[in-house]
Amino acid sequence: MSALNTEGKKERVAYVDEEFLPESEAKISILDAAFVHGDSVQEFTRTFNGELFKFDEHMDRLVKSLRCTRINLSISIVELKEVSLEIVRRNKSLLGPNDDGWVVNLISSGILPKWREKGVEYKGSTIAIHFKPLPFESYAEYYKKGARAIVAWTRRASPQSIDPKMKQCSRMDLNVATREVERMNPKAYAILLDQQGNITEGDGQNFFIVTKGVIKTPTLHNTLGGISRATVIELAKKGNIPIEETNIYPYDVYNADEAFLTATSFCILPLTEFNLMSISDSKPGPITKQLLEMWSEEVGMDIVGQAMSHLK
Amino acid sequence: MSALNTEGKKERVAYVDEEFLPESEAKISILDAAFVHGDSVQEFTRTFNGELFKFDEHMDRLVKSLRCTRINLSISIVELKEVSLEIVRRNKSLLGPNDDGWVVNLISSGILPKWREKGVEYKGSTIAIHFKPLPFESYAEYYKKGARAIVAWTRRASPQSIDPKMKQCSRMDLNVATREVERMNPKAYAILLDQQGNITEGDGQNFFIVTKGVIKTPTLHNTLGGISRATVIELAKKGNIPIEETNIYPYDVYNADEAFLTATSFCILPLTEFNLMSISDSKPGPITKQLLEMWSEEVGMDIVGQAMSHLK
Amino acid sequence: MSALNTEGKKERVAYVDEEFLPESEAKISILDAAFVHGDSVQEFTRTFNGELFKFDEHMDRLVKSLRCTRINLSISIVELKEVSLEIVRRNKSLLGPNDDGWVVNLISSGILPKWREKGVEYKGSTIAIHFKPLPFESYAEYYKKGARAIVAWTRRASPQSIDPKMKQCSRMDLNVATREVERMNPKAYAILLDQQGNITEGDGQNFFIVTKGVIKTPTLHNTLGGISRATVIELAKKGNIPIEETNIYPYDVYNADEAFLTATSFCILPLTEFNLMSISDSKPGPITKQLLEMWSEEVGMDIVGQAMSHLK
Amino acid sequence: MSALNTEGKKERVAYVDEEFLPESEAKISILDAAFVHGDSVQEFTRTFNGELFKFDEHMDRLVKSLRCTRINLSISIVELKEVSLEIVRRNKSLLGPNDDGWVVNLISSGILPKWREKGVEYKGSTIAIHFKPLPFESYAEYYKKGARAIVAWTRRASPQSIDPKMKQCSRMDLNVATREVERMNPKAYAILLDQQGNITEGDGQNFFIVTKGVIKTPTLHNTLGGISRATVIELAKKGNIPIEETNIYPYDVYNADEAFLTATSFCILPLTEFNLMSISDSKPGPITKQLLEMWSEEVGMDIVGQAMSHLK
Amino acid sequence: MSALNTEGKKERVAYVDEEFLPESEAKISILDAAFVHGDSVQEFTRTFNGELFKFDEHMDRLVKSLRCTRINLSISIVELKEVSLEIVRRNKSLLGPNDDGWVVNLISSGILPKWREKGVEYKGSTIAIHFKPLPFESYAEYYKKGARAIVAWTRRASPQSIDPKMKQCSRMDLNVATREVERMNPKAYAILLDQQGNITEGDGQNFFIVTKGVIKTPTLHNTLGGISRATVIELAKKGNIPIEETNIYPYDVYNADEAFLTATSFCILPLTEFNLMSISDSKPGPITKQLLEMWSEEVGMDIVGQAMSHLK
Amino acid sequence: MSALNTEGKKERVAYVDEEFLPESEAKISILDAAFVHGDSVQEFTRTFNGELFKFDEHMDRLVKSLRCTRINLSISIVELKEVSLEIVRRNKSLLGPNDDGWVVNLISSGILPKWREKGVEYKGSTIAIHFKPLPFESYAEYYKKGARAIVAWTRRASPQSIDPKMKQCSRMDLNVATREVERMNPKAYAILLDQQGNITEGDGQNFFIVTKGVIKTPTLHNTLGGISRATVIELAKKGNIPIEETNIYPYDVYNADEAFLTATSFCILPLTEFNLMSISDSKPGPITKQLLEMWSEEVGMDIVGQAMSHLK
Repeated sequence: MSALNTEGKKERVAYVDEEFLPESEAKISILDAAFVHGDSVQEFTRTFNGELFKFDEHMDRLVKSLRCTRINLSISIVELKEVSLEIVRRNKSLLGPNDDGWVVNLISSGILPKWREKGVEYKGSTIAIHFKPLPFESYAEYYKKGARAIVAWTRRASPQSIDPKMKQCSRMDLNVATREVERMNPKAYAILLDQQGNITEGDGQNFFIVTKGVIKTPTLHNTLGGISRATVIELAKKGNIPIEETNIYPYDVYNADEAFLTATSFCILPLTEFNLMSISDSKPGPITKQLLEMWSEEVGMDIVGQAMSHLK
Repeated sequence: MSALNTEGKKERVAYVDEEFLPESEAKISILDAAFVHGDSVQEFTRTFNGELFKFDEHMDRLVKSLRCTRINLSISIVELKEVSLEIVRRNKSLLGPNDDGWVVNLISSGILPKWREKGVEYKGSTIAIHFKPLPFESYAEYYKKGARAIVAWTRRASPQSIDPKMKQCSRMDLNVATREVERMNPKAYAILLDQQGNITEGDGQNFFIVTKGVIKTPTLHNTLGGISRATVIELAKKGNIPIEETNIYPYDVYNADEAFLTATSFCILPLTEFNLMSISDSKPGPITKQLLEMWSEEVGMDIVGQAMSHLK
Repeated sequence: MSALNTEGKKERVAYVDEEFLPESEAKISILDAAFVHGDSVQEFTRTFNGELFKFDEHMDRLVKSLRCTRINLSISIVELKEVSLEIVRRNKSLLGPNDDGWVVNLISSGILPKWREKGVEYKGSTIAIHFKPLPFESYAEYYKKGARAIVAWTRRASPQSIDPKMKQCSRMDLNVATREVERMNPKAYAILLDQQGNITEGDGQNFFIVTKGVIKTPTLHNTLGGISRATVIELAKKGNIPIEETNIYPYDVYNADEAFLTATSFCILPLTEFNLMSISDSKPGPITKQLLEMWSEEVGMDIVGQAMSHLK
Repeated sequence: MSALNTEGKKERVAYVDEEFLPESEAKISILDAAFVHGDSVQEFTRTFNGELFKFDEHMDRLVKSLRCTRINLSISIVELKEVSLEIVRRNKSLLGPNDDGWVVNLISSGILPKWREKGVEYKGSTIAIHFKPLPFESYAEYYKKGARAIVAWTRRASPQSIDPKMKQCSRMDLNVATREVERMNPKAYAILLDQQGNITEGDGQNFFIVTKGVIKTPTLHNTLGGISRATVIELAKKGNIPIEETNIYPYDVYNADEAFLTATSFCILPLTEFNLMSISDSKPGPITKQLLEMWSEEVGMDIVGQAMSHLK
Repeated sequence: MSALNTEGKKERVAYVDEEFLPESEAKISILDAAFVHGDSVQEFTRTFNGELFKFDEHMDRLVKSLRCTRINLSISIVELKEVSLEIVRRNKSLLGPNDDGWVVNLISSGILPKWREKGVEYKGSTIAIHFKPLPFESYAEYYKKGARAIVAWTRRASPQSIDPKMKQCSRMDLNVATREVERMNPKAYAILLDQQGNITEGDGQNFFIVTKGVIKTPTLHNTLGGISRATVIELAKKGNIPIEETNIYPYDVYNADEAFLTATSFCILPLTEFNLMSISDSKPGPITKQLLEMWSEEVGMDIVGQAMSHLK
Repeated sequence: MSALNTEGKKERVAYVDEEFLPESEAKISILDAAFVHGDSVQEFTRTFNGELFKFDEHMDRLVKSLRCTRINLSISIVELKEVSLEIVRRNKSLLGPNDDGWVVNLISSGILPKWREKGVEYKGSTIAIHFKPLPFESYAEYYKKGARAIVAWTRRASPQSIDPKMKQCSRMDLNVATREVERMNPKAYAILLDQQGNITEGDGQNFFIVTKGVIKTPTLHNTLGGISRATVIELAKKGNIPIEETNIYPYDVYNADEAFLTATSFCILPLTEFNLMSISDSKPGPITKQLLEMWSEEVGMDIVGQAMSHLK
């Protein structure tokens, strides 16, 4: 059951601090550490045909992010999962035809310690969960013609500062990189290098190239262990396509046969331009397409078709 | 005028999104980029005797942080200042005797672009302003006996990722460092090194040592240009005490004659222990005390006395 | 006296391997180490009113470049100067009205050792000298409206590989950076960062900012000791404008009051855009203009006026 | 057909700018970007028994170097190959008995843009091709007694500046390293370390060690992807000798059982001294010899024998 | 035969400078380079049931350390082994029941060259060998309850300064790290990171984690090639447990399923706390225990049982 | 009073572990942490005309080294000074005519903790003090003709591992560097670079250059704060010669007008060759000589003359 908003229209339901309430009323205090200190972790899990995909893997990574950030989750992970499933259930009916969504888990360390009043009891963490339809229209066109990626000036934070394996919300390096590239080309994806000049990832996307039949992606030393990234590795193994986790320099991308991004939303998105140079003859490559097809098969639906149906 | 909260007691007033409202109702959407992406900047400006100290300098730094993060402020800086002053005015009467507070400005880039609904108009930025009494009781005791500082395992993000000169809210390196040190000693301040092992700063404090009569502090290559830091530099010049901005290694601190932190709240706090080794014979040093006295004189009140009056 | 080319028109005279000959016939062997290994050093010295400016300083730097690259000059430096002056003399009459030029010295290590035939005697170095009118039309417009600079993806070679203080011809980092930026904006100057993310220089230009009345430029640890750079330092001292050699991060440029480039050709060129962000209200700044005026005074001619007279 | 030089003797023919002409007349303008900016790429392909070896692989790498340097080749790669083959054909008859040669391809970006005259048409690139007998006498003796290698002070340019995978001509780091080592021992090969102290390569040679039966060579993160290096990898696989691409520190070389260099000219050259310490009991090792024999077999000729026949 | 000390009690025998003598009289000159310059290498080889374990491997590593430090051993390695065996023989009878020991080889470069008197003959190296019972009581308790490890502030020397693969005695980084951690917790093992923040090793221990059934340990680029480390690799292969040499960041340890140290003395010691966070539910993990059992089997004795028998 | 050795000749007296005894009997246990772990600190203080020079400064630095290494001195620093003076007194008479010596203080952390027997009491530190005549003959010739310096392959340990400001005895980087250079040229001084390629120091010498009248020396970020280095800084100030602490790259040395080393023994030694390239026209430079003269004046004796009188 979803909420009714003030105009009497059905509205998505979100969950904050032990309450289910309309998304437009789902808020956190301006004293929350999430706001003042970026002190939170996150997970986005998408549905295929309304079913959450690899939700356990996402929750497993969340636990790891919590442990490394030393943020305490004030409920059990089992409860967190249940509420998340409930949020999916309550909002699913609001999805349009041929639609899917993602459930978003955000956990912060709660009200900033120095602003807690004496004698008042505070929750150990702030938990916010909500559900959104996938933004198909923002990427659907690229499945066929390929997307562009451009390296930002800003470098990804080094692992000895903020380990990229933690999926956390202090993302100013990613935020600025995104806006730097937006000024160069508002339709390009920003890619960040690490401190030594290796490719790492985009703001929410993992990066892959294909060279002479071998798929390559940055190692987990400078990049997030994306669930979609792991899925591609599994699919490649299943399809007997060799795959390597290795350092990738811009040289390798300029001379790659194919390149693609992975993300929870679009799964796999072909890249046909990198740093204003065309890759792969400006067309999505065969291995990229094969992986997309294998993934579609795995989830029993046409990933590309679904997205493209949202293009007018 | 301050607000009445639900129990009829007077409550502090905050400002969010063009509205003045009780602090307990001052909230931001869970869809705000501040929550999901740590995409915000901040300033904390304290009062002395109820008057804001160097508010223009704080606002000037805010403008610089906004420019570098490419976050647009949806009102003018003049309006922002006015509202901030209004917030101080409305809350001052709630301060206790011998109390002072700080006004907090937080500006985020607003609702995350990918979650904005078509056809709906959104503000370009989220503006939150509130006012808090200073947490004197958390540091007052250290003016006389000196505080402890311990180097965290986590390193400060490198300037090519998140320039420390931006006062922004993606602070996970600082958050984790604070909690790392908290487990070693809950009463110690966490200090972070840069990627090469130089001292940078604490989570909201600048770092200083005094060696053979010369004050030293890290350069602006790896540390925030704190307003209190700048005040110490001015005071030192006024007092003819030589001061240098330079790289500082742990060796230099172990062998320093004095050490201290600066912050908007406590101004100057003597350090008498660093990495579990005593500094300065475990007593606040003479130059540290001289600087504190000069500052008190400058603002026309007894900084240490005020703080200590809050110790029971 | 200048040469006659095949069409009977007067042509500029160049000097290669002990011969004066028409520029179009001035060539080096395809076996020369300059071609195969980029094994050469260079100097460009401009004239003001037909007189070489700081030619001794340029030759002094050439000697240092030769020493560090271990390239032997097969004639004396005195002879090299004489021939250079002769080249200026012979070509000056070909300059148009209100024109000036630069004399170019290129010294390579001669025919690649492994390709030298036994029993044949080879010169120890290849010496090429020529004279060109200055390309005023390529930069004149920027004196008034300011130029744009953009940071390239490619980083400047580190000093432990190719010390930027050597003015030498293995410039692939600079070549690629120039072409990277050309694709973003064909009218922008490329700026390179060093391995740690500090600003270094452009492909032939030194970089300066002005912040609160202080001029700042990168140190000689990561940048060429440009003769024009040294001239600005002298002028600043003469004009009592404080100047510092220091590390400069993009943050510092975004928040600078002014910025400019220096080069042998244009002397000082105002920058009003950096990384697609405006600087200095998009107008050349007052200190930049003052320095240009001081320089004009020093050389007894209107530097900006001369350049602008070449705009149609 | 080869050319006649001015003394009526047959001379090798080279190709420059669409013309075949005697090598001694094959020249490029002193205004060429190759001379002034080291702005060119190169390939050296050798013959065995007069047949080019892996010419397609060399041309493939050339295309990659061109792409990354953004130098445009003004003819097609097919034409380039044809001319190269023609150059081999025309010069082969000038080879002595038991001789072989290498064809050299050099492509620059042509006359420096800023020196191009208005109204004149320029080629997009300068193409120079020539053919030289191999310098057997410079290395033949080392097949039996082993060569020496010494680490130079100069470090190899970092991949974020000039990616070593590009075979390009801005080689000042390699040039200086060669001359540094020449002063220590004129018969030693110079080896360069990367910025972190790992072995990379020599000036035109890849580096290998053998430890407990395993062949090791630096990865493509800091070294050129040599065609001979690739051949060794193939031969090792064919011979079931384990081979690894990995970081190699001087420690590993001091304690290696064998070491060798690879290059287009000598294929494989045993090393028996490194940094003035003997390796491999000062004798070429068994795996080194086995690889050389396998290579000889592959090309149907005695590689070592041919070279040694040129020793008087 | 062991020595009689001054009180007529039997005392262990040591060997210094070609002499067997009571341990209490085994000394080196204060002029020895070992004392003044830390100029020595070392090996510790333990016995199981009185038999030296992998003594050849230890001696092989000693030879490598000598070669890289350029310290000359003034006797042959065969002689060194013989004396070492003799030392074991002479001291074994002094071991208590259920005891074992380790033989310690220390080789320095002898009297510091600048302090050698003219006309006096000096040995090329100082050789000291002694035998000690294993300090079971210092670690036995941790087999069952697990040990703690804490990252020190001091970083492991970089391989381009002192390659960690050399087992040598200039260990100030390790010494200081040990004492840093001792002040945090006197019962914790110190772990050092490398210059980039990867885990390296402890002061005499290699570091391992187990994640999803895969054993991981730092590579030989930043850590000693421990003989116990090699034994674990062998055992893992024998037991078909996948094992990887890779970079390990603190993130990986916080999220590991198990962790353990290896050393010559205790072989394998479970870790259950790292940086004040529990690992492996604070209990030694199953793979850790399996490896310990396999090792016990290999040496024909109960490693854990022996150690625990020394706990009172 | 000095000791009689076994042949009845007078012998120098040393001090170890609270005992004065003949130097040849002055020894430390092979179980001492100095031997096994390089766990000690040191000071060398020379006499001029038999009087210790800046002994307080040396002892002050010793205290700092002890604090940072966390080695406890088991007697007071006052007692240590007294014994040191006593050692000088007792040995002075053994000096030859026109001779001087240096007193050597070595403090280790005593018997290695893991080898201490239960129930036995151990000293907290091992203290060794001895006195040696200066090795004039090893450097005297270089005052007039200049010495050679060569950069070693080994790099100086980074400050985050072993801070070079600690004068301590784990010197394997320096030991190996010395032996590396010895093989290139047994009469050259080894110079080490830091991790980034800057000049640091030699094995016991600080490094200086003079360029256009300005003296330059590496900063204390990568080099020992030598007492002789400090003396040169004082002398330069007294003589109004500008002096800078700054990063120095090999480029700067190749192009320097003068270069010299400082050390406790020789005070100042001119360098006339660096990396096999001549500096300063191969003759000691005027500022180098002026500094030496000022120093001689300060200590009331002819430093160069004394040294040269020891050349036969």
